[in-house]
Amino acid sequence: MPTPAPIRVTVWSEYRHEKKNPKVAALYPDGMHRTIADALGRETGLTVRTATLDEPEHGLTDAVLDQTDVLIWWGHMAHHEVADAIVARVRTRVLEGLGLIVLHSGHYSKIFKTLMGDTCSLTWREATDKERVWVVCPSHPIAQGLGACFELPAEEMYGEPFGIPTPDELIFISWFTGGEVFRSGATWRRGNGKIFYFRPGHETYPTYHNPQVQRVIANAARWAHSGLRIKDQAPNMPPLEPLPPDPEATSRSTQGHQ
Amino acid sequence: MPTPAPIRVTVWSEYRHEKKNPKVAALYPDGMHRTIADALGRETGLTVRTATLDEPEHGLTDAVLDQTDVLIWWGHMAHHEVADAIVARVRTRVLEGLGLIVLHSGHYSKIFKTLMGDTCSLTWREATDKERVWVVCPSHPIAQGLGACFELPAEEMYGEPFGIPTPDELIFISWFTGGEVFRSGATWRRGNGKIFYFRPGHETYPTYHNPQVQRVIANAARWAHSGLRIKDQAPNMPPLEPLPPDPEATSRSTQGHQ
Amino acid sequence: MPTPAPIRVTVWSEYRHEKKNPKVAALYPDGMHRTIADALGRETGLTVRTATLDEPEHGLTDAVLDQTDVLIWWGHMAHHEVADAIVARVRTRVLEGLGLIVLHSGHYSKIFKTLMGDTCSLTWREATDKERVWVVCPSHPIAQGLGACFELPAEEMYGEPFGIPTPDELIFISWFTGGEVFRSGATWRRGNGKIFYFRPGHETYPTYHNPQVQRVIANAARWAHSGLRIKDQAPNMPPLEPLPPDPEATSRSTQGHQ
Amino acid sequence: MPTPAPIRVTVWSEYRHEKKNPKVAALYPDGMHRTIADALGRETGLTVRTATLDEPEHGLTDAVLDQTDVLIWWGHMAHHEVADAIVARVRTRVLEGLGLIVLHSGHYSKIFKTLMGDTCSLTWREATDKERVWVVCPSHPIAQGLGACFELPAEEMYGEPFGIPTPDELIFISWFTGGEVFRSGATWRRGNGKIFYFRPGHETYPTYHNPQVQRVIANAARWAHSGLRIKDQAPNMPPLEPLPPDPEATSRSTQGHQ
Repeated sequence: MPTPAPIRVTVWSEYRHEKKNPKVAALYPDGMHRTIADALGRETGLTVRTATLDEPEHGLTDAVLDQTDVLIWWGHMAHHEVADAIVARVRTRVLEGLGLIVLHSGHYSKIFKTLMGDTCSLTWREATDKERVWVVCPSHPIAQGLGACFELPAEEMYGEPFGIPTPDELIFISWFTGGEVFRSGATWRRGNGKIFYFRPGHETYPTYHNPQVQRVIANAARWAHSGLRIKDQAPNMPPLEPLPPDPEATSRSTQGHQ
Repeated sequence: MPTPAPIRVTVWSEYRHEKKNPKVAALYPDGMHRTIADALGRETGLTVRTATLDEPEHGLTDAVLDQTDVLIWWGHMAHHEVADAIVARVRTRVLEGLGLIVLHSGHYSKIFKTLMGDTCSLTWREATDKERVWVVCPSHPIAQGLGACFELPAEEMYGEPFGIPTPDELIFISWFTGGEVFRSGATWRRGNGKIFYFRPGHETYPTYHNPQVQRVIANAARWAHSGLRIKDQAPNMPPLEPLPPDPEATSRSTQGHQ
Repeated sequence: MPTPAPIRVTVWSEYRHEKKNPKVAALYPDGMHRTIADALGRETGLTVRTATLDEPEHGLTDAVLDQTDVLIWWGHMAHHEVADAIVARVRTRVLEGLGLIVLHSGHYSKIFKTLMGDTCSLTWREATDKERVWVVCPSHPIAQGLGACFELPAEEMYGEPFGIPTPDELIFISWFTGGEVFRSGATWRRGNGKIFYFRPGHETYPTYHNPQVQRVIANAARWAHSGLRIKDQAPNMPPLEPLPPDPEATSRSTQGHQ
Repeated sequence: MPTPAPIRVTVWSEYRHEKKNPKVAALYPDGMHRTIADALGRETGLTVRTATLDEPEHGLTDAVLDQTDVLIWWGHMAHHEVADAIVARVRTRVLEGLGLIVLHSGHYSKIFKTLMGDTCSLTWREATDKERVWVVCPSHPIAQGLGACFELPAEEMYGEPFGIPTPDELIFISWFTGGEVFRSGATWRRGNGKIFYFRPGHETYPTYHNPQVQRVIANAARWAHSGLRIKDQAPNMPPLEPLPPDPEATSRSTQGHQ
């Protein structure tokens, strides 16, 4: 068998907190996207690039998306600065088959909300908490190599109810010291695209340096890769079998569908 | 037990084909919404009003929505004329708990697409076909009183693939003489709202006079009624249990969540 | 509208721990089933009876099941003593439309395992823990009247992974002081029957005296009531449309299907 | 990257009709399992063996199952002759991670019924019909290489309602000339095992010689391979966090969990 082509991952991030908050800059001197991309780059079979909000077209040109199999998304304070046209472009690509991994505060990103069709709301607490991520679907590809659970000693809390459509697959549930639970890893199919939401990753904590978190994201990149790009269409179809007789056929409307 | 309050249904329709196409006008002289509303009005425990595109605010003022438990939606040629602000208003209500029943060509309405987050595309053929609607979930409340299947002797064809998220419940699958199949009745939960899509109802056929179709819509109105209106929120929550010690607590960012 | 007929609930329990363990007897002098039945009996629109393992046919005669709309099941130490014939009888009824509510250690009952088709395994710890039950589907009928969460100050721990098929609806997730999470309220449809599993209820704690627990069970009894009894069948069906010509029709096997 | 190990497929069949019915023998002189196995053997990355009912232990010894990643199952007239002990053995393996593909009349096999927990009933007609299999999830790995639909010019009819739990994924819906529809390709997860049901394959038709049918089965074999074997367990777990104080700890029951 020939070696399969590598999966082309683009890691997108706002890259704002890192420039404004010294604590974040100390953790992620080149940005969270760089830390995530470096981790993915050490994996076999993945090629990785990055893109950020302040690049032209947010770094998500058609040329870049043509070369992207899986897009990873981290946003927080600047969701509203993401141009609607770029959101629409990414949405179209996801529905055609682009894989999408949405991280942490990306639950309120335009791209996640438009694909979920739901509030995407949750409860939260920006106080250092311990998060323990439990695997509830041990056989899922995204859960491989993790054991029964893993801990993040310092994280923001997100709590239920999380305003999402019923996931196709629920993979992780998080426990927080403060007393809350959260569906922290879940998948959905939209069009031909595979979507994974993963909760951890508040910017003031070293979460993306954590090996288990990196393992989840690498697993998810492989899982989300469909290899497909199928254009959306709503074709008018001739019948495959004889239709019943239609005495009024000649008076039938011929206007298009939409 | 006291008698429960009636369920307040608003039937919304474009009401355009009926004014332009004599064939449609002959079938539905007062509009499809009127035919549907009359059928629902004969049911016990439902009170019904109508609203149409060309009324101010498309007839969907806050006052009307305050008095609506379940909204029924038929649109086709004028989806693009529905104001985005009204779509946003209805979307907010659905996520708070308003029931929504989307009929036929409403699969491409703004409100359905924004709640599905998917293409909502399908194949189609505007030629007189026989549709046989099969019940695949006989115990579902929406399927009661129908038997194993029912037939519509003349309908437009819609075929798979239908670009929808995996339904929470699949209730009907349609067979067409021309050789196609379609998931013609399905439900989803979005926020606190219950959504039902029902395929039949091309304007040039007498579908909404059909007793089984009327039965489905009445069943669905009762099913979609949640009795709830819960405002969307994303509250900052104090911990319920003691947090682990946080040596850096004083330097923590206090910016809001988004 | 005429008053609907009351929903007939049968509460089934092993009723063994109460006779052997003084601590359990002190909490539930007439058995856990009696405490649950008394709580349900205070609800409007429910009529309640009980049945226990050591009665003839475990109290689940055909006559009793003929008069039962919803069956509640608590078992633990004597799962293996439940006769296979009675399990098969109850299974048949559930598939016909009987509602089933399985409590706590009933996750390993024969009836739950045969309807799930899965391991139904979990991790556990019989040590006094605090359980906080979070509502993840606030609009579900089973979650009404509870608020965002409720606490049980002393319970056994059950932890993930829970070996169940993907629930149709996930309603509750529990948090435990010891660091675990659990999908503690979930629903499935099997045949025409509605099934709800609810985690709390270890025999050495006063869980079934808790008003929120009683609220959940009463809500679930109403939710699980289908009003249906549809016999299982696999009928040989004549065609509804003309078949294609079959030159070999006369040589066709006529043996039955199975 | 090293070449992955081949996926080891075992094709199991009753192999009875082929010995009794000359028409079946003419179509499948060495058995349906042989035709299926030969088709899979031409695929890259699969190694294939067969097993049949009348071999010792039905050919499904522990040694064979130790060497099997994916099991394909065809049965019809002799479901009741499959020993319960072998069914239990296969069930245990599936829950540990063995992939399972159930074909056609296998809907009523013991192994499928025990994993579904449902009636698995359907309507049927043993008369030559045309079946058109529509792809409803075009991005699913099992649907690759098929186009929008494919036709089987002669098949037995299976119709809805099909008594199965809500599938995790619905991939195919069939149309029949006689007027019926059927969910003809669907998946479920049970334990760590992936299960696919595929409708076509009545013994008196050349279905398993059809290239699209062979494509589906080969795709499904790759999809169902988990690479996992995780033993079922229900471990007693020590707490990961300090428990609340328990004044009665010394009197606590120490009996095992069941």
